[in-house]
Amino acid sequence: MSLGIGIIGAGVMGADHARTVARHIAGAHVAALSDVDQARAAAIGAEVGARRVLGDAFALIADPGVDAVLVASPDATHADLVLACLKAGKPVLCEKPLAASSEDCLRIVVAEKALGRTLVQVGFMRRFDPAYVAMKAALTGGTTGPALLFHCQHRNASAPPWWESLMSITNAAVHEIDIARWLLGAEIVRGQVHRSAGGGAFRDPMFIVLETNRGQLIDIEVFMNARYGYDVRGELVCEQGTVTLAAPVVTTLRQGGTESSPFAGDWRPRFADAYRLELQSWVRGIASGSYEGAGAWDGYAATAIAEACVHALDAGTPVDIRLAAHP
Amino acid sequence: MSLGIGIIGAGVMGADHARTVARHIAGAHVAALSDVDQARAAAIGAEVGARRVLGDAFALIADPGVDAVLVASPDATHADLVLACLKAGKPVLCEKPLAASSEDCLRIVVAEKALGRTLVQVGFMRRFDPAYVAMKAALTGGTTGPALLFHCQHRNASAPPWWESLMSITNAAVHEIDIARWLLGAEIVRGQVHRSAGGGAFRDPMFIVLETNRGQLIDIEVFMNARYGYDVRGELVCEQGTVTLAAPVVTTLRQGGTESSPFAGDWRPRFADAYRLELQSWVRGIASGSYEGAGAWDGYAATAIAEACVHALDAGTPVDIRLAAHP
Amino acid sequence: MSLGIGIIGAGVMGADHARTVARHIAGAHVAALSDVDQARAAAIGAEVGARRVLGDAFALIADPGVDAVLVASPDATHADLVLACLKAGKPVLCEKPLAASSEDCLRIVVAEKALGRTLVQVGFMRRFDPAYVAMKAALTGGTTGPALLFHCQHRNASAPPWWESLMSITNAAVHEIDIARWLLGAEIVRGQVHRSAGGGAFRDPMFIVLETNRGQLIDIEVFMNARYGYDVRGELVCEQGTVTLAAPVVTTLRQGGTESSPFAGDWRPRFADAYRLELQSWVRGIASGSYEGAGAWDGYAATAIAEACVHALDAGTPVDIRLAAHP
Amino acid sequence: MSLGIGIIGAGVMGADHARTVARHIAGAHVAALSDVDQARAAAIGAEVGARRVLGDAFALIADPGVDAVLVASPDATHADLVLACLKAGKPVLCEKPLAASSEDCLRIVVAEKALGRTLVQVGFMRRFDPAYVAMKAALTGGTTGPALLFHCQHRNASAPPWWESLMSITNAAVHEIDIARWLLGAEIVRGQVHRSAGGGAFRDPMFIVLETNRGQLIDIEVFMNARYGYDVRGELVCEQGTVTLAAPVVTTLRQGGTESSPFAGDWRPRFADAYRLELQSWVRGIASGSYEGAGAWDGYAATAIAEACVHALDAGTPVDIRLAAHP
Repeated sequence: MSLGIGIIGAGVMGADHARTVARHIAGAHVAALSDVDQARAAAIGAEVGARRVLGDAFALIADPGVDAVLVASPDATHADLVLACLKAGKPVLCEKPLAASSEDCLRIVVAEKALGRTLVQVGFMRRFDPAYVAMKAALTGGTTGPALLFHCQHRNASAPPWWESLMSITNAAVHEIDIARWLLGAEIVRGQVHRSAGGGAFRDPMFIVLETNRGQLIDIEVFMNARYGYDVRGELVCEQGTVTLAAPVVTTLRQGGTESSPFAGDWRPRFADAYRLELQSWVRGIASGSYEGAGAWDGYAATAIAEACVHALDAGTPVDIRLAAHP
Repeated sequence: MSLGIGIIGAGVMGADHARTVARHIAGAHVAALSDVDQARAAAIGAEVGARRVLGDAFALIADPGVDAVLVASPDATHADLVLACLKAGKPVLCEKPLAASSEDCLRIVVAEKALGRTLVQVGFMRRFDPAYVAMKAALTGGTTGPALLFHCQHRNASAPPWWESLMSITNAAVHEIDIARWLLGAEIVRGQVHRSAGGGAFRDPMFIVLETNRGQLIDIEVFMNARYGYDVRGELVCEQGTVTLAAPVVTTLRQGGTESSPFAGDWRPRFADAYRLELQSWVRGIASGSYEGAGAWDGYAATAIAEACVHALDAGTPVDIRLAAHP
Repeated sequence: MSLGIGIIGAGVMGADHARTVARHIAGAHVAALSDVDQARAAAIGAEVGARRVLGDAFALIADPGVDAVLVASPDATHADLVLACLKAGKPVLCEKPLAASSEDCLRIVVAEKALGRTLVQVGFMRRFDPAYVAMKAALTGGTTGPALLFHCQHRNASAPPWWESLMSITNAAVHEIDIARWLLGAEIVRGQVHRSAGGGAFRDPMFIVLETNRGQLIDIEVFMNARYGYDVRGELVCEQGTVTLAAPVVTTLRQGGTESSPFAGDWRPRFADAYRLELQSWVRGIASGSYEGAGAWDGYAATAIAEACVHALDAGTPVDIRLAAHP
Repeated sequence: MSLGIGIIGAGVMGADHARTVARHIAGAHVAALSDVDQARAAAIGAEVGARRVLGDAFALIADPGVDAVLVASPDATHADLVLACLKAGKPVLCEKPLAASSEDCLRIVVAEKALGRTLVQVGFMRRFDPAYVAMKAALTGGTTGPALLFHCQHRNASAPPWWESLMSITNAAVHEIDIARWLLGAEIVRGQVHRSAGGGAFRDPMFIVLETNRGQLIDIEVFMNARYGYDVRGELVCEQGTVTLAAPVVTTLRQGGTESSPFAGDWRPRFADAYRLELQSWVRGIASGSYEGAGAWDGYAATAIAEACVHALDAGTPVDIRLAAHP
C-alpha cells in the first residue's frame, strides 16, 4: 500500500526530496537512498528513515524494495540512470535536465516509446506551483482570450561558484522554456539571445526572446546575480487581459521607514509547495498510470530548445529551432 | 508504521479532513469513518479508502484499528466523544469548539489532567497557517518590540441559514480569541462588544474589543454576511513596527477595467494549508508525544472568553473575564 | 483677477501654505505674511514673493491688498483671528482646530450666522485627498450599499516634544472625526476610548470607538510614536463590499532581501496634494461663493466631539455626545 | 507677473492643457487659443477664460499678449509652428513629436542653436511623473548600482480608428524611448522589433528591444488594443536591486468576489499630474531661463530612434542607430 521510493543523490535536491517524501507525502516512504558519498547518504538516510542506504545507484534501481526511482544526482549521470530504470521497468522521476544533451534525451524518449508505456517524468516542478496553475487556469478558463506574449523574469540572489555563463540558458531559463510550452500549449520555433552589459565575461543578465509556432512571443530575463534575493515573476498577456504571478507573500512588515515583504534566499522555499505537489502527484500517477507532470518528450524539447538558444547567443542573431520528429 | 486515524463525522469538515489524510498526510491512513448518516459515511469512506465505515462513534473509538481519533461531528457531541477518547487512552483532535460550554471544556481539562498525559488537541488550525506563523515569528524575532494592539477582521461571504447572532462570537470570533492568545502569549481579561447598525436583529457585523493581562488591546470585526467573499485579515501593532497578514494571492488579473485578485468563497480554501499542516503536525505529535497545536486548556479558555463576550453583548458594557484555575 | 492671500503664521504650516500658493495655485498670490517672529516672516515672505510682511496679524487682516486670510498661527490665536476676519468681511481659511475650545468654535458659528454669509473654512485637508475622495465616491456611487463600519489608523513616526496625551484626541484623531462625519454624512453621538498598555503615562496608542446617529461604528487607532513612519489608513465596511485607502506608493524597490516602499516621514508629503487641492478649491470658492471644504459648523462639531472623547477617556466608559443646536 | 500662454489646438490635448493652465498653474493664464475649428476654439476659450480666440496659429504666435506658446495641433503642423516661435523669439512647449520626421526635428535643433538660446521644450510629460522621477532618484541615489535592463509595458485600452501600425512605434513607444534616454542618461544605438501574432495586419502588440551605448537593454511592449484599460509599467533592473513603477492606486475595492483597483481609461488621468507639473515647470523655466524638461535635441533623438525602429520592423533584424552630430 505504501510506495517504496528510491532516491539517487543525497545532495541539496536529493536530501530535500527525501525529507519531503518522509514528512509530507501520503502513500509513500523512502525505501532506499544512494550517493557516491556514502556518509552523506547515511546521514540523510537516518534522518528520513530510509530502509536501505547504498553507494551504488544501479544497485538501488535493482533493489526489490524500490518501487519507483527519484533521480537527483549530477546532470551527467541522468541519462544512464533513467535508461536503467526503463530497463528495470520502474517509474522514474528525474530532476531536470532529463539528460545533459538533447541527443541523450532523445535516446530516452525512444527507449520509453519502445517499451510501450510511460515510466519517465521530469522534475519541472513549476507545473505544480499554485501560481502557474492559476495562470494556466485563467488562460484555459476562457475569459482572457488567446495568449499573445509571456514576460518572464528569473532571478537568483547569486550564482554558485561553479556556474558558467551558458548554464543561465541550459539550467536556469530551461524552467521558463518548459513552463511556457506547458502554459501556451504551443511549441517554440525560434530564439534569440540579447546580451546585456552586466556580469562582464559572465554575461549576466541575459535576455532571451522566443517565438512559438502560433506566433506568440516569450521574453525571459535570466539574472543569476540579482543580489536582492530569489525572484521568479511572469505576466501572460492575452487578447482580453493579462495574468500576473503575484509575489508569494504571507505577511508585510512596516518598520524603519518602509513597508516590506521578504524574498526567499533561493528557489527551495519559493517552490517548496510545488515540489511537494509534484511528488504527491507522481505517487498518485504511479498508482493510476496517469501522470500530470512533464514527460520524456518535454524533457527532450526543453533541452533541445535551450541548446538552440546557446547557438543563438554565439550567432548573435535569431535562430530557427527544429525539434526531432516525435516518435 | 502508518497511523490509523478514525474520523467521526462525514459532514463538510469531516469529509475534508478524510480527504486530506488520504491524499496529503505522510505516515497515516483513514482507518475508520463514522457518521449518523451511514450512507454519507459510506460514500466518503469509499472515496478515501477507509478500512471501516461505522454508524456509531463510540464503536469507532473502540475499534482496534483506530490509533487516534479526529472529532468532526456536531458541537454538542464533542464533550462526550473527547471524554470517551480519554477513557480509551487514544489521542484525539477535536474540531473547535472543544465542547459546547466552558463547563464541559473544563471537565475535559480535568479528566486529561487526571490521566497524567496529553491526549487532546483542539482544531484551531490558524496556529498552523503560514501567515500567522510568520506574524508570530516576526514578533518573537525581536525587531518589532512588544505587541500593543492586534486588529482583526473576520468576514464570511454569508452565514449559513441556521446561524444565530451569538455564534458570531462563540463560533467565529473564537478563532481570533485563540490566535490572539497564542500570538501575544498573554491572557484575555476584559471584553466588550460594540454593536453596529448592520444585520437588523442579527447584529452583523459585531465589533469586539478585548484586553489582555498585559494591557494589550485586541479588536475584532466579525461580519458573517460580508457578501464579497471570505476574508480574514489582521495587523499586529508593536512598539517598533507592525506586521500585517497579506491576502493569499497567487495571481492577479488585469481585465475589464480593473486589476483584481479573487477571494475564497469560504474558509476551506483559505485555510487548506493550515488544515493540512495541522493534521501533519498532529500525526508527528502522536509519534513524538510532543504537540504543537492548541490543547484542552486552550479549548477551555477560548470558549470561556467567548461566553464572557456574550455576556458583554447583553450588558452593553465592558466585562471582566475570569478563567478557572489552571489544574 | 489674482486673489491676494494674507497668511498669518510663518511656522511649518504657514510656510508650506505660502509656498503652495506661490508655486502651485492658479489665480492667487501671497499678498501679505505675518508672524510674531518677524525675521521668520521676512525670510518666508522673500522666498514666496509676498508683497508685504507684517508682525501684527490684525494689521494683515485689515490690509487692503489682502482679499482673503489663511490662519496658520498657534491654536490659541485662531478664534480671535477668525472673528476679526468675519468683522472685516474677509473670507478666511483657518487651520484646524477652528478654535481651542468648542465654546469658542460656537462663537464663530454664531457670528458667521449673524453675518448671513459663508466666510469661514476649516483646514480639514483630508476632504481633498484623492484617496478619501475616491472612497466617498465609491460609497455614494451606490454599488457598496450603506456604510456600517469605518476602521481608521492614524500613525505618526514620533510625537513632537511638546505633545501631550490628550492632544492625540484633540489634535490628531480630530482629523478622523471630521473625515468620518464627511464620509458617512452622519453625526457622531457616542464615544469611548480604550487605553492600550503602550507609551506609559503618555497613553499611546489610544483606541477610540465612536457611534453615529445611524448606528455606524468608527474605530480609530491613534499612535503618535509608531516609529516606522507617518501612516494613515482606513477601510470603510459597507453592506456590499469594502473600500480601503491604498498606501500612496509610486515605486517599489527590490533590494537587500526585501521588496519595499517608503513611508513619508510626516503628514506633509502624505497630504501635499490634499493641501494644494484644498487651497485651489478655496480660491475657486471665494470667486464662486460656493465652498467645498469644511465650514465653521464642521470645525465646531469636530472639536466638540473630541472634547467628549477626552471626557470618555477620563471616565473609562462610553459617553453620549450632544452637540449644540445648529444655529 | 502672470505669463500669457497662447495655446495652438483646441482638440483633446489642447483643451486639457488650457484647463490645466486656467485651473492649476500659478503665475500664468491662457492669453489666446487658436484652432482651425473656430467654434471649438471659442467654446474652450470661453471655458478657460482665454482673452483672445483665433483661427490662425501664426496670428496667435504674433499676438503681443502671448508670452509663450503651447503647440497641441496635429503632428504635421508642429515643425512650422515651432520654427515660427523661434523666429518670434517666444518660448514654445510642443506636444510630442517635435516634428513629423527626424529631418524636420533636426531643422528645429539647428535653428534654435543658431539663435543661441533655449526656447524649445518637447512635451515628454513622463519626465515629470512622480513615479518616473522617483525611479530616477533611486537610480542616481546610489544604492541600486548601475542600470542593466529596463522593462517597459505601454498599453492602451484601444487604438483610435485612425491609428496605423507604425504609429505604435512613432507615437506610442516614442514615450518609452524618451524616458529611457532620460532615465539611463545614455544613448540608444541599436534596435530590433519582434512581431507578435496579435492584431492581424495591425501588428499589435509589438515588442521592441533597444540597446544603449553602455550596453544596457530596453525592452518595450506596445499594445494598442489591450482592452482592459490604460496601463503603463516599468521595471529598472540594476546591479544591486530593481525599481518598479507602482500602479497609481488610491483605493482598493473588495466586492463581488474580488479585491480590485481600477485602471484609467486613457493616458490623461494616468498622467494628469505629470502634465500639470510639466506646465508648472515650464512656466518657472521661462522665468528663470533654466528648463527641466525635454529639449529640441531630445525631440530629435526620440523621433530618429523611432524611425530606425520602423526600419528594423521592416528588416526583421536588428539595426544600428546613428544620430546626427549634436550641433
